[in-house]
Amino acid sequence: MRNLVLNSSSALHGYGYMDHCETAVRDLFDGCCVVFVPWALHDLDAYTSTVGARFEKMGIELVGVHTFDDPVVAVNEADGVFVGGGNTFRLLTRLHDSGISGAIRERVGKGMPYMGSSAGTNVACPTIMTTNDMPIVQPPTFEALDLVPFQINPHYQDPDPGSTHKGETREDRIREYHEMNTHPVVGLREGGWLRVRGDEIRLEGLSGARIFRRDAEPEEAEPGAELVL
Amino acid sequence: MRNLVLNSSSALHGYGYMDHCETAVRDLFDGCCVVFVPWALHDLDAYTSTVGARFEKMGIELVGVHTFDDPVVAVNEADGVFVGGGNTFRLLTRLHDSGISGAIRERVGKGMPYMGSSAGTNVACPTIMTTNDMPIVQPPTFEALDLVPFQINPHYQDPDPGSTHKGETREDRIREYHEMNTHPVVGLREGGWLRVRGDEIRLEGLSGARIFRRDAEPEEAEPGAELVL
Repeated sequence: MRNLVLNSSSALHGYGYMDHCETAVRDLFDGCCVVFVPWALHDLDAYTSTVGARFEKMGIELVGVHTFDDPVVAVNEADGVFVGGGNTFRLLTRLHDSGISGAIRERVGKGMPYMGSSAGTNVACPTIMTTNDMPIVQPPTFEALDLVPFQINPHYQDPDPGSTHKGETREDRIREYHEMNTHPVVGLREGGWLRVRGDEIRLEGLSGARIFRRDAEPEEAEPGAELVL
Repeated sequence: MRNLVLNSSSALHGYGYMDHCETAVRDLFDGCCVVFVPWALHDLDAYTSTVGARFEKMGIELVGVHTFDDPVVAVNEADGVFVGGGNTFRLLTRLHDSGISGAIRERVGKGMPYMGSSAGTNVACPTIMTTNDMPIVQPPTFEALDLVPFQINPHYQDPDPGSTHKGETREDRIREYHEMNTHPVVGLREGGWLRVRGDEIRLEGLSGARIFRRDAEPEEAEPGAELVL
């Protein structure tokens, strides 16, 4: 049974790192030894150290996947996996090159708890086609872990009515996605996350989400809502 | 001899469509029959009609590349090419799939005038790795037309000191690019364009640009400056 927390971001304005989602993290990873995937960022040790210290405060053990000779073994021996944020293209490239994509998909399919944050949430989707990140490296494919049958756009931002900028809004970009693709897209604002248990998908946290479907008007969902996607 | 206008955007707040860069467009395409590449957007006819009407006001003939049975012939018979903005991934995919990448590169190398705007500026670079766009379709490669030996980030935006958003700033994203790549990146604000004549690269228009080099502090360039990249 799927057991996922897909977070928009670990940082939220006005809160300490992971403070806004601490209850969800504790609930998901209670008693687990968690393998952390820091590959979305450049400095793997520094990132793992920051996250490890935060997890230690919650009494959860955490080890970096990059410290293992064989990262597939790391995934197979862990009780849970946390895939952190950063650049989604770099993360996906390393997930595929290391061979752990298949191991994560298989173990998460059998119930291993998975948390993603930002880029780690993007890669939980069928593809990374709704990331906000710059394509700084070319992955072998845009296909990702496919842990849920819909797309998420983390750090979702509403259009700023006072803006004079002429670049595309986030809503424009998701509309372009739907010109070429069919999956629904959850625009997940900072402060919110999806709690997935089996087939149940619940929006939790402090922020509403905006749901985009092809050929339909976007809809708002409030925290606590069950989403049918 | 290279003869290019690489524009941040065709639209600028407070100006009519292409009004702020009209002098540069007239100078580049004077007397030309221009082939227009609308593939970055979804509705090719509507886009070509809008741009064609604007070019007609300047007395410049323009035809959509998609109206030809063989787009390579269209490029080879034109006097100039304008590649318009929209989604860079969709544009690059169609440039490669249609086979016109090589024809554009060859003719521009021999002096055919080229204008790019936004996505059309991204594809003039060695790769599309400094686009802002969502990866809504997977191109066969991130390698692009390589008309200039550096990268451009169109619609460049400075960090907003009052923002509470926790997603990456544009500067963060370009720093991530330089963690993985070496080309200099021109952060080209809306209102500015690069005028390339042979080996001379000049910043023109109404806005300064921010120049990012790997392992160096970013530098500002003012309109009128010659850039050494």
